[in-house]
Amino acid sequence: MAKVAALSLPVESPKITLIGVGLLGGSVGLAAKKRGVAGRVTGLVRRVESIEECLASGAVDEATQDFAEAVEGASLVILCTPVGRMKDMAARIKPHLSPEAVVTDVGSVKASVVQGIEPILPRFVGSHPLCGSEKTGVAHADADLFEGATCAVTPTEQSDAEAVVKVNEFWGVLGAKVVNLTTEAHDDIVARTSHLPHVVASALVHAILGKPAEGESDFIGTGFTDTTRLASGSPTMWRDIALTNSEAIQKAINDLQLELSELKNALATKDGTALEGFFEEGKILRDQWLEGGEKK
Amino acid sequence: MAKVAALSLPVESPKITLIGVGLLGGSVGLAAKKRGVAGRVTGLVRRVESIEECLASGAVDEATQDFAEAVEGASLVILCTPVGRMKDMAARIKPHLSPEAVVTDVGSVKASVVQGIEPILPRFVGSHPLCGSEKTGVAHADADLFEGATCAVTPTEQSDAEAVVKVNEFWGVLGAKVVNLTTEAHDDIVARTSHLPHVVASALVHAILGKPAEGESDFIGTGFTDTTRLASGSPTMWRDIALTNSEAIQKAINDLQLELSELKNALATKDGTALEGFFEEGKILRDQWLEGGEKK
Repeated sequence: MAKVAALSLPVESPKITLIGVGLLGGSVGLAAKKRGVAGRVTGLVRRVESIEECLASGAVDEATQDFAEAVEGASLVILCTPVGRMKDMAARIKPHLSPEAVVTDVGSVKASVVQGIEPILPRFVGSHPLCGSEKTGVAHADADLFEGATCAVTPTEQSDAEAVVKVNEFWGVLGAKVVNLTTEAHDDIVARTSHLPHVVASALVHAILGKPAEGESDFIGTGFTDTTRLASGSPTMWRDIALTNSEAIQKAINDLQLELSELKNALATKDGTALEGFFEEGKILRDQWLEGGEKK
Repeated sequence: MAKVAALSLPVESPKITLIGVGLLGGSVGLAAKKRGVAGRVTGLVRRVESIEECLASGAVDEATQDFAEAVEGASLVILCTPVGRMKDMAARIKPHLSPEAVVTDVGSVKASVVQGIEPILPRFVGSHPLCGSEKTGVAHADADLFEGATCAVTPTEQSDAEAVVKVNEFWGVLGAKVVNLTTEAHDDIVARTSHLPHVVASALVHAILGKPAEGESDFIGTGFTDTTRLASGSPTMWRDIALTNSEAIQKAINDLQLELSELKNALATKDGTALEGFFEEGKILRDQWLEGGEKK
């Protein structure tokens, strides 16, 4: 691993810059320092109060609100803001970037982000480390957050080959299982595996808690609590994800609605065999998947 | 509490009979003994091997496969079999029941169970203690399972008033928060609060793991795992619940589908305000509900 880092990053004290230092950005900083791939980590923050907090967390060596200061001399810049602000950030760092600097991001959707930034920054390659956490903020940053996690890297035909290698190596050194795929394939997959569970959780909360029958709350138990956990995520983050991946999410909702319609047919006809088959196949599919060890 | 029990159960060594001794039946036995409301607990089991297991768990003082032996002299009989077998059990214990014996059950649906059993056993009153657990079997029985749990009791116009009081007192002594409501109100409520989360979890597993895209499993994380936990429940138990509460569950699925359609509209029109509002309201409703302390 050290060899990989030595090959791909400048030997003397490479500087890594985090644009936005929350849970993910902070964890990148801690992880990069722990694995020795960053000589120096600089964080760009929006609010002056964040400077102290970032330094206290140990995730950065220096924090600033100044774009020039943040990215000057950096060999790798990682956009860790909400998805909706990334394109603007790319434009604002551009004048201060060294020509060799590689830029990546941590956004949960890729087609819109990559289409927006690629024309601005030729050495940009999109990434998405999948590290589910309900926590937010640099105070919860974790040097081992990426250990064993899947990290998608989404190069395009326009991507700089050296930048693609560098981004792949970087997440690999941080412990992630790196998977390369197109932005479209990525967005279709996460619409199903990540965005669909989220929108369903939220819809379920609306359906039940939005119009409660009298005395109903006494009857809500752990099943509802677990099934709807995702609904407590950040509304603005999920608005951005929904807006930037709306078609794939609509398709995923349609897939679920087909399953629900099939189930309603079996309920309407009181088809015990079909109902048992439905629940049994669901159980088998899930249990087998859990046994496969993919329960991150 | 001791006073309540002394008033309502025969003073000298009342016998309680469990028809079926799994997780719930076993827990009733342990709880009744711990709280001193049963002088003797007898369990009726289906398989001869279960006799030893029941005795070893401490949930019963005696276990038998003989219906006469099981219920003779019992002041309270609790049906703890799967819902689909309860009516048959009621018919089979009837010839051996003493006239004073009160009968109740622990089934997750009430209208079909009560309609089936009431004509057979005049001193039957339906119950449903809500104790979510993924575990099954008497080995996991817990004397405190009902402590703080909601227990629905569903008397009808035909119910014997004394039997209703006795069933209410019994669950109260076991630590449950007892709620009386009609069988229809009960079934409508649990269709929404319990059955809907379950069928959605199963449908979500079908939609995602049933037709996986290539490489998709690397992208399935804790969000999916939590949202679908209920899908690993017993298929036969859920078939029975679906068959016996099919109309209310269809209605609950329709409620959810309306929410999903609303969300799809907002996605199709890329209505950021509507999307953020949807996620925000979902978060607020859920967070407020959790803060209300009803997170059993």
